[in-house]
Amino acid sequence: MLAVAFLAWTVPPAQAQREPGVLFQTSTIGALMAGVYDGALTFRDLKKHGDLGLGTFNALDGEMIGLDGRFYQIKADGVAYRVGDAMKTPFAAVIFFQADQAVDLKSPKTYGELAKYLDTLIPTKNIFYALKITGRFRQVKTRSVARQNRPYPPLAEAVKRQAVFEFHEVRGTMVGFRSPAYAAGLNVPGYHLHFLTADQKAGGHVLDCEAENVKVEIGYAPKFFLALPRDADFSQSDLGPGKTGEFEQVEK
Amino acid sequence: MLAVAFLAWTVPPAQAQREPGVLFQTSTIGALMAGVYDGALTFRDLKKHGDLGLGTFNALDGEMIGLDGRFYQIKADGVAYRVGDAMKTPFAAVIFFQADQAVDLKSPKTYGELAKYLDTLIPTKNIFYALKITGRFRQVKTRSVARQNRPYPPLAEAVKRQAVFEFHEVRGTMVGFRSPAYAAGLNVPGYHLHFLTADQKAGGHVLDCEAENVKVEIGYAPKFFLALPRDADFSQSDLGPGKTGEFEQVEK
Repeated sequence: MLAVAFLAWTVPPAQAQREPGVLFQTSTIGALMAGVYDGALTFRDLKKHGDLGLGTFNALDGEMIGLDGRFYQIKADGVAYRVGDAMKTPFAAVIFFQADQAVDLKSPKTYGELAKYLDTLIPTKNIFYALKITGRFRQVKTRSVARQNRPYPPLAEAVKRQAVFEFHEVRGTMVGFRSPAYAAGLNVPGYHLHFLTADQKAGGHVLDCEAENVKVEIGYAPKFFLALPRDADFSQSDLGPGKTGEFEQVEK
Repeated sequence: MLAVAFLAWTVPPAQAQREPGVLFQTSTIGALMAGVYDGALTFRDLKKHGDLGLGTFNALDGEMIGLDGRFYQIKADGVAYRVGDAMKTPFAAVIFFQADQAVDLKSPKTYGELAKYLDTLIPTKNIFYALKITGRFRQVKTRSVARQNRPYPPLAEAVKRQAVFEFHEVRGTMVGFRSPAYAAGLNVPGYHLHFLTADQKAGGHVLDCEAENVKVEIGYAPKFFLALPRDADFSQSDLGPGKTGEFEQVEK
């Protein structure tokens, strides 16, 4: 009994929750699209659910990327800032990343070609995947969004004033997820990637890219844990069924 | 340290996983509709995630209802059998039920009226809810489905040969869930209830009812844990986006 007791004592709580293959998400992409830009979840708590991921910040104040347990905020000025534990997110998806597949890509690939190629690697389109794509890119085009003021406009409005950044011959990492089409009401169907330069100084939500020489790591996520907000903004928003048509508008 | 150790030792594993408000689901309603009727999850393992819920069995062999930690199989003969721990399910949703709201309904209500009334009780349409409706019903109309053989037909085909049962002036319990519209690709949007008579001898998937004098208990489920199968049937099925239109056909 003492042996068991000692193990229980020595496993830290965060570690204990590290069930592999669990994609944790707070709120839904539909709520974000509807303008629910304030959440109650701190990054201190978000980190208990993963070390890699993406999302945004309260007041839609930039793009979030989590890589190797460090979280960054790419604001509308294009600069990547480290995220404080007390900051909060209205929408984020994270996972404790483990690569189930890894491939080195030597020939250049556009974003579209990369997506098509990844689709040939994965064993099924019916589960979630985490992605980590590290190396050299001929080009990466990202965007970030500016902090919004209440009353919040819907995301399709907010992104009309997005800042766009172009990186050329850059080293860095794209991280994100592939979600199945049937999860359209919850997360972005297909690929959703954020980028961070190797010097950790810039990045954003990936609009386009040309990968030159990158390592692609894919982590299978057959488990999806959705934690929904309980506040008035989320509760009162009219989410309706999954609004598939709007993704092109806000994500591309 | 010994006090902590002792607590860790005395909490059984299942109990330790009883995070309140977590709706656990294996597979998706879309996969079930597509004819994915065999799963790898045993009821032994399903019970670790909840004591109340609904679903079906491998080969689509009847309707499942879980109530107070006991699980029943209502086969196409209309009889409720106790479920063995080694049996498996291709689709099930369960929760450790806790009532956040409870209301006694004294005036008769049809299924439609009951759903409308429940919609006025819940604080938001944007989270999941578990339901337990216990008491006297003037009428309950249920169905069960017959065990299928491979190659499996889609659910819309299988339910064409469903067995329908009518109960009059019956005591029993309806249990199930209300899922938000945006989750249509994952679970049945709106109300989905299964019924068990008070003598635990019959029941089924609720098609219609008239509640006479019942206690309605609602448990909030702001957390949704989706565990997806990894087998070939699920992996290879063409799930596409959420097929909202087909629900009427297979659930009513």
